[in-house]
Amino acid sequence: MTKLVSTGPADSSAQGVNYDRVFHQAIDRLHAEGRYRVFIDILRNKGNYPNARCFAGHNGPKPITVWCSNDYLAMGQHPKVIAAMEEALHDVGAGSGGTRNIGGNTHYHIDLEAELADLHGKEGALLFTSGYVSNEATLATLGKLLPGCIIFSDELNHASMIAGIRNSGCEKRVFRHNDVAHLEELLAGADPAAPKLIAFESVYSMDGDIAPLHAICDLADKYNALTYLDEVHAVGMYGARGGGISERDGAADRITIVEGTLGKAFGVMGGYIAAEKTIIDVIRSYAPGFIFTTSLSPVLVAGALASVRHLKGSGEERDAQQAAAARLKTMFAEADLPVMPSTTHIVPLMVGDPVKAKRIADILLAEYGVYVQPINYPTVPRGTERLRFTPGPTHDEAAMRELTRALAEIWDRLEMRKAA
Amino acid sequence: MTKLVSTGPADSSAQGVNYDRVFHQAIDRLHAEGRYRVFIDILRNKGNYPNARCFAGHNGPKPITVWCSNDYLAMGQHPKVIAAMEEALHDVGAGSGGTRNIGGNTHYHIDLEAELADLHGKEGALLFTSGYVSNEATLATLGKLLPGCIIFSDELNHASMIAGIRNSGCEKRVFRHNDVAHLEELLAGADPAAPKLIAFESVYSMDGDIAPLHAICDLADKYNALTYLDEVHAVGMYGARGGGISERDGAADRITIVEGTLGKAFGVMGGYIAAEKTIIDVIRSYAPGFIFTTSLSPVLVAGALASVRHLKGSGEERDAQQAAAARLKTMFAEADLPVMPSTTHIVPLMVGDPVKAKRIADILLAEYGVYVQPINYPTVPRGTERLRFTPGPTHDEAAMRELTRALAEIWDRLEMRKAA
Repeated sequence: MTKLVSTGPADSSAQGVNYDRVFHQAIDRLHAEGRYRVFIDILRNKGNYPNARCFAGHNGPKPITVWCSNDYLAMGQHPKVIAAMEEALHDVGAGSGGTRNIGGNTHYHIDLEAELADLHGKEGALLFTSGYVSNEATLATLGKLLPGCIIFSDELNHASMIAGIRNSGCEKRVFRHNDVAHLEELLAGADPAAPKLIAFESVYSMDGDIAPLHAICDLADKYNALTYLDEVHAVGMYGARGGGISERDGAADRITIVEGTLGKAFGVMGGYIAAEKTIIDVIRSYAPGFIFTTSLSPVLVAGALASVRHLKGSGEERDAQQAAAARLKTMFAEADLPVMPSTTHIVPLMVGDPVKAKRIADILLAEYGVYVQPINYPTVPRGTERLRFTPGPTHDEAAMRELTRALAEIWDRLEMRKAA
Repeated sequence: MTKLVSTGPADSSAQGVNYDRVFHQAIDRLHAEGRYRVFIDILRNKGNYPNARCFAGHNGPKPITVWCSNDYLAMGQHPKVIAAMEEALHDVGAGSGGTRNIGGNTHYHIDLEAELADLHGKEGALLFTSGYVSNEATLATLGKLLPGCIIFSDELNHASMIAGIRNSGCEKRVFRHNDVAHLEELLAGADPAAPKLIAFESVYSMDGDIAPLHAICDLADKYNALTYLDEVHAVGMYGARGGGISERDGAADRITIVEGTLGKAFGVMGGYIAAEKTIIDVIRSYAPGFIFTTSLSPVLVAGALASVRHLKGSGEERDAQQAAAARLKTMFAEADLPVMPSTTHIVPLMVGDPVKAKRIADILLAEYGVYVQPINYPTVPRGTERLRFTPGPTHDEAAMRELTRALAEIWDRLEMRKAA
């Protein structure tokens, strides 16, 4: 037992705070709002995605189908990725043993950075331990290097970008989601002599819509602003070589910094930025979140390297994913389920209530062996709680038909008919 | 070529900023101070640590000995760790495919958290993608949950703790390194009704000294403060089961939150905290750096689980490391090299100048095949630049003798004799 419970008095007073009560109240708030999160305990079956085992009950693992993984192209089980990781594991061992500067800079890191720079047509790239860290560290550091910088941020930007912008200490101006007119209004209203950075995403992961890259770059040119583009839900999946929406739209050379992840379509773990050499060098040299952390395990880096290389040359997985997404959207629409207007591989169903979203997910898991996580605040705005499906190359038509039937049945049972 | 170069005018003006020049100037400052960092490109040889290959030249890899790894006990090549990672790789695949809440909560994560909670005698534990993130996310979130909290921080705390404290928005009061009298002075001067947190490390990694845990906990009791202890350079290495200095000193139950890493003595990658259940639950539920990131690869988690379990039962690696550190310190002292007064496994040699420290390291690598990284600002204060050696169970006496001879020769050559 810690002093936390034994020392604190019942009330905040001259003797001090009852910490335990503060923490319990914070948890109680989540329960009251119906958004206390329960993590589903699973193991995916390599070679057999989207099949997995769920450890929810007490009768040993139960077979389930995963519909909410961000291993979008099932590269996490690709034989080339597995073989590369196994080889690195046996050649150099488990971890890197240090920061990039102190013993943790392996030849795999160098090779992967070169591969990622090439993927985005940039001079250099820099690996981070996660996409979250790459956004936080890069945006915070850029802002600090540019005194007086104003950061223009899409209102739906990911939490990691918001954290980086906050930690940069810069003034932030938020533009309405994908609203170029509003962005221009804000840019025109800013001091022309102030450094400026426009931070946005290509694919927004909870809605599945896409930013107008060229229009935003036109404004960046007009107002001399840098551009920072988060492509974590696009790399590997869009563009002829998997370079993301910036490759698909022929806009990569107009983006100052492209940020991506190795943990979604590439199936492994880690994050990165790609940019011109000087920018890579300043972030490498000044970002605490890059400098003061053990580098990515060489095992992960070797796997990511194999994955990036494979997806540069193969469009098969991308095509299969797009076909699966189109098929599922059609099935949902035909069943009058409230599928949201995504233009990407992401298939969200609007529920609009955290308790109901969790209820549906619980029924799906318990009765149908379908695992899809309810998405609630703070991941999406309150009142827009949803189920988010990510069909990929390994979700077949029969599974989609079963899923659609299950959802239609639950929608009826909970009297939630019909489409939004 | 990006607009960065082509658009910006030569000077900051009404037309805007020359971003390229700002970034180049930032890099030039590092060169001018002699602290521009060059990463040494290596691959360690699994099964044969501390031997490695260095890719510095153009004649293919050259054999080197690594003296600066934080894989302190060489667990990164331990057969149990390698086997566990290989098994997970083949069972579940490369990455987790999602955040802990959305598809990325594997059974390995659950098991490792239980193992780590047990290691520190706490009710629960929580995994993060790195030790950096665990410090940043936990401290920032705790501070936000406790309005008006004052954080008392050792002046030598790691950059990740400093980031967390800054991002918490709390008032920070810095106490002199390991100075309990100064800490009490600051605690006594603070509002008794304000929430308080004392943040410190057990082993300080660049000096190798140890905090007075019980004395600090006495003050925490007296002033009703929470305690946050970073044990990243101690877990696996101190205490009968590798629970760190808090285990060794019998102080674990007096510490509110113990933070550790899987990337140093445990040989893999990742970070964690251990604490009572309510605290784990609030951090799990409120920390953006935990919530919004792909979880650790199950391959890493499986490896870390094997490593933690092994070191709970085996003291052999710890004993061998302590013997190696004692031996190297003695050899350095006998050769009149300025070894700093470390009481731990860390063996730092003071140089006091960034250019000289790099010069020595360059000679060691080029002429002796010895890899030790010069440690410069901002990792240590300016004027205290040093070489930091981390002998472990696999550094034998012959290698130590060679190293000592090489250093003595270089110290003579650069006319730096003798000991501090």
